[in-house]
Amino acid sequence: MILLDGKKTSADIKEEIALEVAELRRRKDITPHLAAVIVGSDGASITYVNAKVKACERVGFESSLIRLPEDTSEEELLNEISILNVDNDIDGFIVQLPLPKHIDEQKIIMAIDPEKDVDGFHPTNVGKMALNLPTFISATPFGILELLDRYNVETSGKHVVVIGRSHIVGSPMSILLAQKRKIGNATVTLTHSRTKNLKEITLQADIIIAAIGIPEFLKADMVKDEVTIIDVGITRVPDSRKKSGYRLLGDVAFEEVSKKAAFITPVPGGVGPMTIAMLLKNTLLACKNKI
Amino acid sequence: MILLDGKKTSADIKEEIALEVAELRRRKDITPHLAAVIVGSDGASITYVNAKVKACERVGFESSLIRLPEDTSEEELLNEISILNVDNDIDGFIVQLPLPKHIDEQKIIMAIDPEKDVDGFHPTNVGKMALNLPTFISATPFGILELLDRYNVETSGKHVVVIGRSHIVGSPMSILLAQKRKIGNATVTLTHSRTKNLKEITLQADIIIAAIGIPEFLKADMVKDEVTIIDVGITRVPDSRKKSGYRLLGDVAFEEVSKKAAFITPVPGGVGPMTIAMLLKNTLLACKNKI
Repeated sequence: MILLDGKKTSADIKEEIALEVAELRRRKDITPHLAAVIVGSDGASITYVNAKVKACERVGFESSLIRLPEDTSEEELLNEISILNVDNDIDGFIVQLPLPKHIDEQKIIMAIDPEKDVDGFHPTNVGKMALNLPTFISATPFGILELLDRYNVETSGKHVVVIGRSHIVGSPMSILLAQKRKIGNATVTLTHSRTKNLKEITLQADIIIAAIGIPEFLKADMVKDEVTIIDVGITRVPDSRKKSGYRLLGDVAFEEVSKKAAFITPVPGGVGPMTIAMLLKNTLLACKNKI
Repeated sequence: MILLDGKKTSADIKEEIALEVAELRRRKDITPHLAAVIVGSDGASITYVNAKVKACERVGFESSLIRLPEDTSEEELLNEISILNVDNDIDGFIVQLPLPKHIDEQKIIMAIDPEKDVDGFHPTNVGKMALNLPTFISATPFGILELLDRYNVETSGKHVVVIGRSHIVGSPMSILLAQKRKIGNATVTLTHSRTKNLKEITLQADIIIAAIGIPEFLKADMVKDEVTIIDVGITRVPDSRKKSGYRLLGDVAFEEVSKKAAFITPVPGGVGPMTIAMLLKNTLLACKNKI
């Protein structure tokens, strides 16, 4: 069994990005610049955004954190976005989700210039992804492709079963892995809450992408030998033995499933760490697209 | 076995549209208007475009046919599109594909205002489709959804196998049928040329969408009893017994497969006639969106 080590892989990617940034700065006096907008003071969101900003600094990007109060109106946020859209100094920006309930998220996403939408959430970018055109692939699917690539997991002609049809992970993964691309050309089955005979299907899978958010949902008796497992789930489960009071569980019963797997991502330390690295990669791409 | 009669269904839809158009005209003095652009003089393309224009007239739409010479430059075509984009009298328009080789099709599609893109080919509309947001679903997938709906074919919890991953049919069908929508909620497997054990997979299917363009590819021994078959293929095969010199064949060996099927589309007269009806439906929608 080989662990798909997202922590190490993301560190490698960040190092590659840092080298490229140094080169860009030296040769062209250009520094990629990511801006992040956060509305309100949700603890988890602030932690995420801060991690993104810190990651920018580490690879040599410029970064801007725009903190807006919880009671920011939709109009004010749209105004902020139009400023970022035309700010030539900003290569890409993200609006941290979720937004307060009085703001229509879809409307906000639609307002972002697709050329600066490094989260890849704008319909134009989702459409380009679905059409296999160059675009910003959103961080989690992009990170999974990269992990599979760097560990030389063969996908062509393999049967991939995706569990969960979210717009963030399950749906784009099912689209991407079936396409004519290096990490692709797979036969893909997309399963979800309405799927009737899930076990029968997962038992046929060469590769399983679990993205449903139910801790330890996928058991050993649901997978065949030598399966590759990508575990996207990450749920906090109360644990009095931990200092934090909780532990993190994926969608896969790691201990039993890992015994049968050829490749498997740990949780934490698998898909999670890849996302920030891919956000940086998209920002670098946005910067290079501008040149 | 029940025949999914696209000819009859599309006639029903056109009748419904005609009623709605009459109502629109009477109540608001508004008539939907579709424009079609064709470049060059490819016989098949002219036939298709003429059929679309004629269908417009039959339901009471206004229509404009813009015929440009084969040697029209990309810039001239882009110019034509920007005129149509701002022409308030035009609710929706299509550019008949394929275009002459000196014109970049993707660039042309990107230039169409998504609000007038009644073919649903613009990445923004493809993205909205993939995100299950209101949009123009392109005619063939839209027609298939409509056929399944009107014949009350249950899709929820069913296993759909799509054969072929084209951007026009296979890929969008696989996305749509897995979504939370009336005709959706299916477990969907997308198969294609790299799929290794196709027969093993099609034998599990409750519904098969065949869209590969290989005449009579799907045989009776590849499907289970009571399967529903949507045959998107339509290939001209030489036939000296026919006056035209050819006959039309689908991707399904109709005679043998229909004996096992619960529902099946004929070729011709199945999916084909639905596409123009759905184009009209999209144009009506574009007109209503404007109001």
